[in-house]
Amino acid sequence: MNRSQDPVRVALLGCGTVGAAVARRMTERSELFAHRVGRPLHPIGIAVRHLDRERDLTGVPDGLLTDRAEDLVDGADVVVEVMGGIEPARSLIQRAIRGGAQVVTANKQLIAQHGIQLCALADEHGVALEYEGAVVAAVPVLHVVREALAGDEITSIHGIVNGSTNYVLDLVSRFGVPLGEAVTRVGELGYLEADPTEDLEGLDAAAKIVILARCAWGVDVQLEDVQREGISGLTDVDFESARGTGQVIKLIASAWRSGPATAPRVELAVHPVSLAADHPLALTRESGNAVVIEAESAGTLRLHGAGAGGEETASAVLGDLVNVARRITVAR
Amino acid sequence: MNRSQDPVRVALLGCGTVGAAVARRMTERSELFAHRVGRPLHPIGIAVRHLDRERDLTGVPDGLLTDRAEDLVDGADVVVEVMGGIEPARSLIQRAIRGGAQVVTANKQLIAQHGIQLCALADEHGVALEYEGAVVAAVPVLHVVREALAGDEITSIHGIVNGSTNYVLDLVSRFGVPLGEAVTRVGELGYLEADPTEDLEGLDAAAKIVILARCAWGVDVQLEDVQREGISGLTDVDFESARGTGQVIKLIASAWRSGPATAPRVELAVHPVSLAADHPLALTRESGNAVVIEAESAGTLRLHGAGAGGEETASAVLGDLVNVARRITVAR
Repeated sequence: MNRSQDPVRVALLGCGTVGAAVARRMTERSELFAHRVGRPLHPIGIAVRHLDRERDLTGVPDGLLTDRAEDLVDGADVVVEVMGGIEPARSLIQRAIRGGAQVVTANKQLIAQHGIQLCALADEHGVALEYEGAVVAAVPVLHVVREALAGDEITSIHGIVNGSTNYVLDLVSRFGVPLGEAVTRVGELGYLEADPTEDLEGLDAAAKIVILARCAWGVDVQLEDVQREGISGLTDVDFESARGTGQVIKLIASAWRSGPATAPRVELAVHPVSLAADHPLALTRESGNAVVIEAESAGTLRLHGAGAGGEETASAVLGDLVNVARRITVAR
Repeated sequence: MNRSQDPVRVALLGCGTVGAAVARRMTERSELFAHRVGRPLHPIGIAVRHLDRERDLTGVPDGLLTDRAEDLVDGADVVVEVMGGIEPARSLIQRAIRGGAQVVTANKQLIAQHGIQLCALADEHGVALEYEGAVVAAVPVLHVVREALAGDEITSIHGIVNGSTNYVLDLVSRFGVPLGEAVTRVGELGYLEADPTEDLEGLDAAAKIVILARCAWGVDVQLEDVQREGISGLTDVDFESARGTGQVIKLIASAWRSGPATAPRVELAVHPVSLAADHPLALTRESGNAVVIEAESAGTLRLHGAGAGGEETASAVLGDLVNVARRITVAR
């Protein structure tokens, strides 16, 4: 049992763009986080597959890198998973939960595919599993849906939740760049996933809207429940016809409730939609993300911010980390 | 000591526009809230000054109204204060905290003037004091500042946080209505406080930015620290000169950090600002509210929604109620 001033032992799994940003900021903000949590957050290690890869860990203490992820997990109070992919992330998170550690992850595909089981496992073991960073990075949509609107009834969520397709469509709409060339340019800017079909066919957006719908309505929805159409089938005629009527085409992810709040049915879709040029979502430029939430009492809430990026995702991950660490401090 | 399935006893103080909306929605959503909290939320009474006033309490069980507020507070697990004003709200909240009840309030002036002392008292007694409804109603800016950005460093907050002055300025900018007439029209629409100087001189906005700054940086700032200029001194020349350069005038509340995050100094201001017509804050129409938060890792976050209204404020109050009730369930 830790005493109240003992450090919270934090294990970081993964050290890519997000992981390195988390490690640097944990170091830089150590005094601030100690103040906010009431105890210092102590990084006990960073698990990586290849110890000798080049990484920007400016300011981070030496000797933290390890390729022994399981040992690291076993010694942690909080496990922060930012390695991505399904395995070994899933097994390591299960191991952390069973060992009584709190877990923070930014792993969208893992939560979309296995989140229901992992959350049930976390509940069973009385630990937190937080994943604000898994959905639209720095835009705090899970906090809003689960906590700020905890006394309300959400009726729909619509959003631009994939920055790379939004950048592509923005180049086409505002600058008349042909679709194929816009895809190439956005890829060159580093905004497309390694497999661009994830973005272009709406799979990334589908994973995010599934996670949001589960949080909003507590429903067991899956990726297969999303009616999905990407942007690769759009033609010059589609863009010209939108332009002719003063509209712009955006890839919109949607979830809406049918049936009562206590036994909701939820519909899910991702598809290109023509919006009036002054529609709030139409104004989302470049790789920006925006989410519009309708709730019975609150009315319309709009959130806008960066939906991707190592530093921006680190903001969400570190927010979850500080919040779960606060919970440990309170509980012990 | 309550058993885990015993209802959470909720006392409501005040039954104006917000209070009546809270009472109606608690009744309508009782099944939903019981599911979300894990225990039913049971309204034990609604304290009012005048028992015989006309109120819309459709669906709310009879017999809840009482003029004995202190007795009501003494029997509650959670006290929800929506009466407004400094006294008796402050004494009743102190009584609730000292008696071990969790407290939710939407009382902006009380929190702006006495929030630091009340929060210290709540900490001392190990209870929660939540006030999301005190700042821009349904826009969940306190949740974002305190929780979602708990791992980040906020550098500035700018916003349109007073709906009635925004409505006045919108009528002037978009429809060319003279300022005095716009004030009259917005008053007729019911958007101005009983004492309109609260809105027009920026006092309402100042109270909100003070509360936001305390939450963002943990600083002890007061209303007197706000450099404040309202909209009543604006002239036709100001509006014409803005229009001539394609700009619109908005009343902007601002808070920004100088100095390091661990020992921040904070500057506060409320004043009319000319913004480019396509600036996100310039697009805020009618009584809408919008807040732009800059943080070192997250970058720019924008939140937009209804900043006033009984139903919209009730959304924030009920969110706080469900969240503090969840905490009771966990703790016992």
